[in-house]
Amino acid sequence: MLTVYLSGEIHTDWRDQIAHGARDLNVMFTGPVTDHAASDDCGVAILGAEPNKFWHDHKGAKLNAMRTRKGIEEADIVVVRFGEKYKQWNAAFDAGYAAALGKSLIVLHGAEDQHALKEVDAAALAVAQDPSQVVAILTYILSGDLPA
Amino acid sequence: MLTVYLSGEIHTDWRDQIAHGARDLNVMFTGPVTDHAASDDCGVAILGAEPNKFWHDHKGAKLNAMRTRKGIEEADIVVVRFGEKYKQWNAAFDAGYAAALGKSLIVLHGAEDQHALKEVDAAALAVAQDPSQVVAILTYILSGDLPA
Amino acid sequence: MLTVYLSGEIHTDWRDQIAHGARDLNVMFTGPVTDHAASDDCGVAILGAEPNKFWHDHKGAKLNAMRTRKGIEEADIVVVRFGEKYKQWNAAFDAGYAAALGKSLIVLHGAEDQHALKEVDAAALAVAQDPSQVVAILTYILSGDLPA
Amino acid sequence: MLTVYLSGEIHTDWRDQIAHGARDLNVMFTGPVTDHAASDDCGVAILGAEPNKFWHDHKGAKLNAMRTRKGIEEADIVVVRFGEKYKQWNAAFDAGYAAALGKSLIVLHGAEDQHALKEVDAAALAVAQDPSQVVAILTYILSGDLPA
Amino acid sequence: MLTVYLSGEIHTDWRDQIAHGARDLNVMFTGPVTDHAASDDCGVAILGAEPNKFWHDHKGAKLNAMRTRKGIEEADIVVVRFGEKYKQWNAAFDAGYAAALGKSLIVLHGAEDQHALKEVDAAALAVAQDPSQVVAILTYILSGDLPA
Amino acid sequence: MLTVYLSGEIHTDWRDQIAHGARDLNVMFTGPVTDHAASDDCGVAILGAEPNKFWHDHKGAKLNAMRTRKGIEEADIVVVRFGEKYKQWNAAFDAGYAAALGKSLIVLHGAEDQHALKEVDAAALAVAQDPSQVVAILTYILSGDLPA
Amino acid sequence: MLTVYLSGEIHTDWRDQIAHGARDLNVMFTGPVTDHAASDDCGVAILGAEPNKFWHDHKGAKLNAMRTRKGIEEADIVVVRFGEKYKQWNAAFDAGYAAALGKSLIVLHGAEDQHALKEVDAAALAVAQDPSQVVAILTYILSGDLPA
Amino acid sequence: MLTVYLSGEIHTDWRDQIAHGARDLNVMFTGPVTDHAASDDCGVAILGAEPNKFWHDHKGAKLNAMRTRKGIEEADIVVVRFGEKYKQWNAAFDAGYAAALGKSLIVLHGAEDQHALKEVDAAALAVAQDPSQVVAILTYILSGDLPA
Repeated sequence: MLTVYLSGEIHTDWRDQIAHGARDLNVMFTGPVTDHAASDDCGVAILGAEPNKFWHDHKGAKLNAMRTRKGIEEADIVVVRFGEKYKQWNAAFDAGYAAALGKSLIVLHGAEDQHALKEVDAAALAVAQDPSQVVAILTYILSGDLPA
Repeated sequence: MLTVYLSGEIHTDWRDQIAHGARDLNVMFTGPVTDHAASDDCGVAILGAEPNKFWHDHKGAKLNAMRTRKGIEEADIVVVRFGEKYKQWNAAFDAGYAAALGKSLIVLHGAEDQHALKEVDAAALAVAQDPSQVVAILTYILSGDLPA
Repeated sequence: MLTVYLSGEIHTDWRDQIAHGARDLNVMFTGPVTDHAASDDCGVAILGAEPNKFWHDHKGAKLNAMRTRKGIEEADIVVVRFGEKYKQWNAAFDAGYAAALGKSLIVLHGAEDQHALKEVDAAALAVAQDPSQVVAILTYILSGDLPA
Repeated sequence: MLTVYLSGEIHTDWRDQIAHGARDLNVMFTGPVTDHAASDDCGVAILGAEPNKFWHDHKGAKLNAMRTRKGIEEADIVVVRFGEKYKQWNAAFDAGYAAALGKSLIVLHGAEDQHALKEVDAAALAVAQDPSQVVAILTYILSGDLPA
Repeated sequence: MLTVYLSGEIHTDWRDQIAHGARDLNVMFTGPVTDHAASDDCGVAILGAEPNKFWHDHKGAKLNAMRTRKGIEEADIVVVRFGEKYKQWNAAFDAGYAAALGKSLIVLHGAEDQHALKEVDAAALAVAQDPSQVVAILTYILSGDLPA
Repeated sequence: MLTVYLSGEIHTDWRDQIAHGARDLNVMFTGPVTDHAASDDCGVAILGAEPNKFWHDHKGAKLNAMRTRKGIEEADIVVVRFGEKYKQWNAAFDAGYAAALGKSLIVLHGAEDQHALKEVDAAALAVAQDPSQVVAILTYILSGDLPA
Repeated sequence: MLTVYLSGEIHTDWRDQIAHGARDLNVMFTGPVTDHAASDDCGVAILGAEPNKFWHDHKGAKLNAMRTRKGIEEADIVVVRFGEKYKQWNAAFDAGYAAALGKSLIVLHGAEDQHALKEVDAAALAVAQDPSQVVAILTYILSGDLPA
Repeated sequence: MLTVYLSGEIHTDWRDQIAHGARDLNVMFTGPVTDHAASDDCGVAILGAEPNKFWHDHKGAKLNAMRTRKGIEEADIVVVRFGEKYKQWNAAFDAGYAAALGKSLIVLHGAEDQHALKEVDAAALAVAQDPSQVVAILTYILSGDLPA
């Protein structure tokens, strides 16, 4: 059984595409909370409001870290997707975190970000452009079967 | 003696400011190669040209990783600076790498990036806006003295 | 599934409150022996009486350590509660032990202990005042749902 | 050469007593910043004021953690002293942190705290009541010589 | 659930006594091959005869190490029993191995060996004289119940 | 339960012989993809063609590493078989990788390779010549039974 | 300062070429005993003759392992050279050992071995064909300077 | 430079023989306190008398552990000598401790203890009978030179 953490971009349905493509494989997928508003506000919603935006974000980011770190630490493979919007430093942070723990890393991004992601890609065991390639990798690793 | 790795932005003189401010402290500073062109082209310059830009970058990023990882692994404190230009995913990657190794992390960035860096800041022991604050932190840690 | 170790104060029903609030979550709770007399006397009850109170306590504390360390080492999250009575150095010891192992730490205490617990809180990913907040954190981490 | 971290109580001269007694031994002593006011206020003094006391303390405690963790992680022996005043949860936290890292732990406290410190003492290789006993231990470990 | 490795003396029924006493507890017991002849000769029986007794023993000891190390590494608690016969250096070796891995160690021996085992006992969380005490410890750790 | 990774030569049926011989044992066997063509071409089949054979192989070897490393890291015992054909440096690499992780290593090879494999054999707990010996070792480790 | 372990082929002067080329760099080179006869016979020369070639080699390989493992474990960078003669499984073993420890790996080999070394190369941060390239890499890592 | 810990028997001059034989080598030797009376009584001499012999010994053994563990943990090579007298379980304990830490282990004992030490020898990289052989091993490891 493979445990695969799906990190990064939360505004397209790439996680669903991978989960659907891998629905017959022996894989457990984990990942961050993907509800953007909940993820931003969880800290103050549970632990009390903060007038300063820095601490507002800080409380939330730490709650999310409880989930994120467990997910990465228990994963066999960490897939990190970079999309078109936002700075996505948390995605790169997760990639570095996973690399330092010796996790197998798959980076998923478009050609336009190739140069900017060269250090992240250099730490990866695969660089893919499409979620279907991630499904094909998981299929191959588990079964030895290649796409027809 | 403190060993401090200075990661991230390479287009302003922030490393020099810190080194100058800390010139009387018992600190050894390390960091990446900061010559942008050399850093980009080192792989092909030494190991042979690649027609494909991905592999051109890949060879270089791996050579740089030899220096970067040693620097981070041997550091007591890792300072990661985010500037105004570029994607800077390598900086966030270094921050994640350092965090996973349990390094003391100082993040240095402007207020405009506060929200985008909340996960990185949440893993840090200090978030500073100015190189002089990093100098003050190092001074305090080594001597117990605070700024006048 | 989350494994959560509940450390610290054993004279109120905070563990029960959390367990009850989280009864529908996929969480396994562990913790120390909470029978104060048994916890104090287990060493001599099993391994023989000691005339010297130091060794009486020593034998017991070591038996309890077998349970405590396994609990902390296997936990995803360690919750440490500081109450109103006693010195509670064992609670702070557990917090330090958990922090050094890289566990996600939640500290639970009243406002009156805020300053005295600042070093412990600084190592935590959440500081809560009420058991219901711990339940809300566990709910959010597992499901992404926030309190209504 | 032994590296010895002296943790805990900062209101009596016990560190000086040990350092003086061990002045002819090959020992390097480290420890926290012992200026109480500087230790409390370092965070806001360097990184900016906080209206909320929790965050005021939080910023300072994290700066101090950079020094404390390095000190404990590099120590062969960690001495933790419990005195008569304050809650001293940071001392117990340091003891737990050191224990989890497998450090040799010496606890230094008066007889009146014996029962409350039983879990901390159970993790120690020595429980002393007087700084001169710590000096005698360091002397014996380095030279094999016992007090006359 | 506790995993308990039972190391040492193989000529009395102490393992059976513990397993019987703990038959209602949630404990998995592991241990070495306790058939003395098989344990001595396994190497040459499987991998071919050796004219030199040293290599005869060497081949067997290495096969046994595959079982022993897995057992100790996966155990929560390692019980090491010293009996009346033989040198039993393998028992002390297992105790040292377990101690270095941070396992909870219970040493089981008669009063006559107290002085000779002082270093081993000093690394243990309990020193017992009778298998029934080990049962009582396991019962207490799992349930908090003490002997009537 | 034992987890056994079967590394190395993929052109004879030695894995099947071991699996058949151990069919009644509580063993889970893992190993690399043994379809030579798939193993060579998986990288380009999934992630896109490469005109340069080095990168063609590189992409494939990295995908295979995801499976191989998980297999070795989760194994109790790693069996490495050296056959008569090819350089088999990947087999020796796996043996070194397993040795550095402290895995129990069994090397399986013919007498003709004894001298060339002396460093690999020196890191092993058993050196066998025949798959049936591996079955006998697994049987002994699990049950204590030796071949009739 | 860089510590670089030079593993593998001992029949050409590649180590001398690298050491000469790097004579002005702050590098400490380590490596195995390169006297082939001494390396083969050290075990029996010191610890007594063995009639069986397997044990003759075994005793020697274990003595060499004391030097080899210390060298690899203390290295920042491990260079592994594959030459034209012999099976060189010890070189591949060292590469696997270094990779599992997270060392920066440079593989040095001719084009004719590219396919056979693909798994080893996939674990490396650089694949070079000539000792002068290794010198250039070390120069760049230490100084940032590229070849003219 | 090699750091070598000399564990075990303290009643003959074997440590001096090795130190003298290796006087021209770049080796730092460490070891336990070899004054038998001081080693037995250090605990009570420094920390106060104990009427019960078990606790008398316990306090001493723990002080000695501070020296012993540092010595073993910092050593490249651990030499453990078994002599003719006493149970010497502490020597076997040290061997197990060193083995679990992955230290290079040399066991030094007479032929009469070969069978009883087979598990300890199986974990060693060399089994010697004479201190001069240990000197020869250290010489070879450092210089590649074999005895004339």
